[in-house]
Amino acid sequence: MKSDIQIAQEANMEHITKIAKKLNLTEDDIEQYGKYKCKLSLDILEKNKDKKNGKLVLVTAINPTPAGEGKSTVTVGLGQALCKMGKNSVIALREPSLGPVFGIKGGAAGGGYSQVVPMEDINLHFTGDMHAITSANNLLAAAIDNHIHQGNTLRIDSRRILFKRVMDMNDRALRNIVVGLGGKLNGFLREDGFMITVASEIMAILCLSNSLSDLKERMGNILIAYDLDGNPVYAKQLDIQGAMALLMKDAIKPNLVQTLENTPAIIHGGPFANIAHGCNSIIATKMALKLGDIVVTEAGFGADLGAEKFLDIKCRYGGLEPNCVVIVATVRALKNHGGVSKDMLNEPDVEALSNGIENLEKQIENIKKYNVPVVVAINKFVNDSEEEIEFIKSYCNKLGVKVALSDVWAKGGEGGIELGEVVCDLLENEESNFKPIYEIESSIEDKINTIAKEIYGAKGVIFTPNAKKQIEELEKFNLDKLPICMAKTQYSLSDNPMLKGRPRDFEITVREVRISNGAGFIVALNGDIMTMPGLPKVPAANKMDILDGGEILGLF
Amino acid sequence: MKSDIQIAQEANMEHITKIAKKLNLTEDDIEQYGKYKCKLSLDILEKNKDKKNGKLVLVTAINPTPAGEGKSTVTVGLGQALCKMGKNSVIALREPSLGPVFGIKGGAAGGGYSQVVPMEDINLHFTGDMHAITSANNLLAAAIDNHIHQGNTLRIDSRRILFKRVMDMNDRALRNIVVGLGGKLNGFLREDGFMITVASEIMAILCLSNSLSDLKERMGNILIAYDLDGNPVYAKQLDIQGAMALLMKDAIKPNLVQTLENTPAIIHGGPFANIAHGCNSIIATKMALKLGDIVVTEAGFGADLGAEKFLDIKCRYGGLEPNCVVIVATVRALKNHGGVSKDMLNEPDVEALSNGIENLEKQIENIKKYNVPVVVAINKFVNDSEEEIEFIKSYCNKLGVKVALSDVWAKGGEGGIELGEVVCDLLENEESNFKPIYEIESSIEDKINTIAKEIYGAKGVIFTPNAKKQIEELEKFNLDKLPICMAKTQYSLSDNPMLKGRPRDFEITVREVRISNGAGFIVALNGDIMTMPGLPKVPAANKMDILDGGEILGLF
Repeated sequence: MKSDIQIAQEANMEHITKIAKKLNLTEDDIEQYGKYKCKLSLDILEKNKDKKNGKLVLVTAINPTPAGEGKSTVTVGLGQALCKMGKNSVIALREPSLGPVFGIKGGAAGGGYSQVVPMEDINLHFTGDMHAITSANNLLAAAIDNHIHQGNTLRIDSRRILFKRVMDMNDRALRNIVVGLGGKLNGFLREDGFMITVASEIMAILCLSNSLSDLKERMGNILIAYDLDGNPVYAKQLDIQGAMALLMKDAIKPNLVQTLENTPAIIHGGPFANIAHGCNSIIATKMALKLGDIVVTEAGFGADLGAEKFLDIKCRYGGLEPNCVVIVATVRALKNHGGVSKDMLNEPDVEALSNGIENLEKQIENIKKYNVPVVVAINKFVNDSEEEIEFIKSYCNKLGVKVALSDVWAKGGEGGIELGEVVCDLLENEESNFKPIYEIESSIEDKINTIAKEIYGAKGVIFTPNAKKQIEELEKFNLDKLPICMAKTQYSLSDNPMLKGRPRDFEITVREVRISNGAGFIVALNGDIMTMPGLPKVPAANKMDILDGGEILGLF
Repeated sequence: MKSDIQIAQEANMEHITKIAKKLNLTEDDIEQYGKYKCKLSLDILEKNKDKKNGKLVLVTAINPTPAGEGKSTVTVGLGQALCKMGKNSVIALREPSLGPVFGIKGGAAGGGYSQVVPMEDINLHFTGDMHAITSANNLLAAAIDNHIHQGNTLRIDSRRILFKRVMDMNDRALRNIVVGLGGKLNGFLREDGFMITVASEIMAILCLSNSLSDLKERMGNILIAYDLDGNPVYAKQLDIQGAMALLMKDAIKPNLVQTLENTPAIIHGGPFANIAHGCNSIIATKMALKLGDIVVTEAGFGADLGAEKFLDIKCRYGGLEPNCVVIVATVRALKNHGGVSKDMLNEPDVEALSNGIENLEKQIENIKKYNVPVVVAINKFVNDSEEEIEFIKSYCNKLGVKVALSDVWAKGGEGGIELGEVVCDLLENEESNFKPIYEIESSIEDKINTIAKEIYGAKGVIFTPNAKKQIEELEKFNLDKLPICMAKTQYSLSDNPMLKGRPRDFEITVREVRISNGAGFIVALNGDIMTMPGLPKVPAANKMDILDGGEILGLF
């Protein structure tokens, strides 16, 4: 069997100008980055503002398991399938971060015969968006320390600086550091730390902005610190958001690439899915909706986190209305939810499946609460038995939910036509009446309670004294009327990663509440979230190489 | 009078494919980055390997003063002038670093009507080379700390780690830091510090490599630390140079842009001119020599540092033979060398000029020691008097050195024709018999003595006990047979920035000796060199902005 990188390297890519032409884009609409990547001008939105939007399809999944679900692969494969069916489809994906590529896992470009290419570029520097975010983030960070060094007229409390430096690298040594050593010339000593670039609030802002001026305003609204009297200090008080926007002038433009089958794919933005909302940019999705008749996009993690944030945060800020949601499940993952350990997943086990499928049932119920039509995609793996697949299909039928088998990993778009036909049927015949699950005008505690009860199925929420104090502070400064971004484990509907399937009769605990005031959401944390990964004992980097002829080794 | 950015923004740029066509490049030879920038394939070198090289002209200067000399402006203007004269000329420049743009000074793209464009891109992210260097540097740094964390089989002495992290930002708080706080999961505590990206050894390596495999080998040869027994530890012992080369796969390709008059300009690499050698990349210069009949390039700082390193380090590693050297001088700067303070430079003062001109005399003598034809360019400023200009001209005539007036700032290429004609005359009628000033097989002390006596005019060199110990250590490990990279003040021929003109009867002091074993040179430091700048009280960033229509404010 060929590896993902072998398949990707054998791809028959078309020149990016040809892909752009399929979308009726002219030479003035694009900026080439080599032969197979380009940036899309923001003018495209303005030029097409009176054009009717395409239909928006969100691909999400059950709670992830070690078995793997293949959400990105299904997203790419479905886009390819729709293309094969003669539809004008466009895929909208998140862009991967460079740092983790050198650690354990590779990027997020799909798999098998459903990948986006050129995968080595997409997974390395791509068009420089991550680097621009790093620069803008670190300019603000440098400006904060410089302000304090130069006299601190804002009276920033150096014990309460919220904004951290970032680097696109897995580097545990930078998690907790002390900066400013060496005396007067080097500024004031203080504790600090680096996060990985995708955890930067600038990334979340990029993905939730509707225009360059919106981006600039949001960057100015970042709550960077509190002053010595306990009042909030914002980035705009340092007069720095203009320079930050200048650094982001190209990063704000979506990137166009293609799939292995030359389907157009827009890849833009990729925030963390825990402390941020885990979706590609609003601008990219909006542009895709102007360029394609059907747009297939995805959200991070499982539906309880990814789809919830897509629907309650991204759609709210972007004025987007999804027309259909695809929930990806696999026989293996559902068996894992039903109690089967990772090394036994190749054995048929309908009983375990019938226990684990409750996770899927809950995700279906949740999407229905948003009044959006839903379809289940069974992402086929080699060892799945007919009986198991049939079990899932009949289970969905009983629930009155459409279901389709997807074999896009092995067969590309051809393997996604069954799913594509169901999706088209829903788009044509079922109406979406999307509405978010909570009102942003509600209190922070009410909003969190709604998510926990309605989506997770919890019986209640415990707020620690610490979290309560933080909520009170946000309320005091009128910073509480924002959507909620839950930072919870992705492995369970609860906040306990060990509780698989569909846990019942549980409470979740909110231990910390933070604000990303520029991005425009309040983060509720159920536990510690690692925002700077480390390298493993033998990093993937050790096997990587590039030969003089350009051949790349060890990437994936 | 128009500002540099106004002039740049009014430029009538040609599409970069048209500029490439002037150089007989095909679509396969280039990778577009937008409409006005492209990368040049390394295959161009191979395809043209039998083609005769063009002539190489180095532009250097007297020791810099606060008055400004305009070396980059003359370089760009001379290239434009040669083009106007019907020559196939190509300019080869260093690329500016993003970080300092937000501090006090802008980039290095020339000035007035002799600039390279698009200047806002060149001075921001450009084609991402700086970011690739940052990533490769920080991957190695993360790998070092990870190696120690994971068991430290190489027994790296964490007190003697030589390789630092970098960031392309002016951020004094990161000069001296402590990393690894927070307990076992975050690695071992140690002192560390960030440098600005251009100070990275990876930058020097990029600029001294002849190919991708050369780059990889040099990166593997970086001396990263000593072990607990005092033996050197190299990057290749961490198996990381392949991944680093992969990160550099696009950065190694030279960038093509144009001047305001559409003359082709290759901009690639820009190492520090003190702890590194301060020249654009060997690959870029070699490629320019294959594509143009006359290549105009520059080196950092004055001729005592910049030209010396260009000739003794870059030309040696690249097998390059310069055909002519242009020394830029200004009436104002020579008066400053003659004792006139900055605010009095507008007043004619031939006496001060006659004192200060000794600095120029010494730089001329120095270039002659390399057996390369030399010409003096008087870079005209508005307040220069006829009498002063005539004084310089007749002084040069007496020395038997060609001299020409340059007015390229105000008039573009047209203002450089007098200089262009002299340069062409030298290229056609005077032979260059270039040889370096020292042999690399000599001892470190002998090599430093040669540079100090022959180039600076010192009567001797004092080595501190610390420096002597470091030299002994390099000799012990046979690391001493490399060229020398002097890290000395740029403002004087001596190591005392206050000694203007042509100091005599002085000694220089070498306080520290370091090795950049990957780049391939030994750095001799005469004092502290700041490798991480800070932001001023009111950073240039505060005035910067970008409007929704794309208009950029405050950049320069």
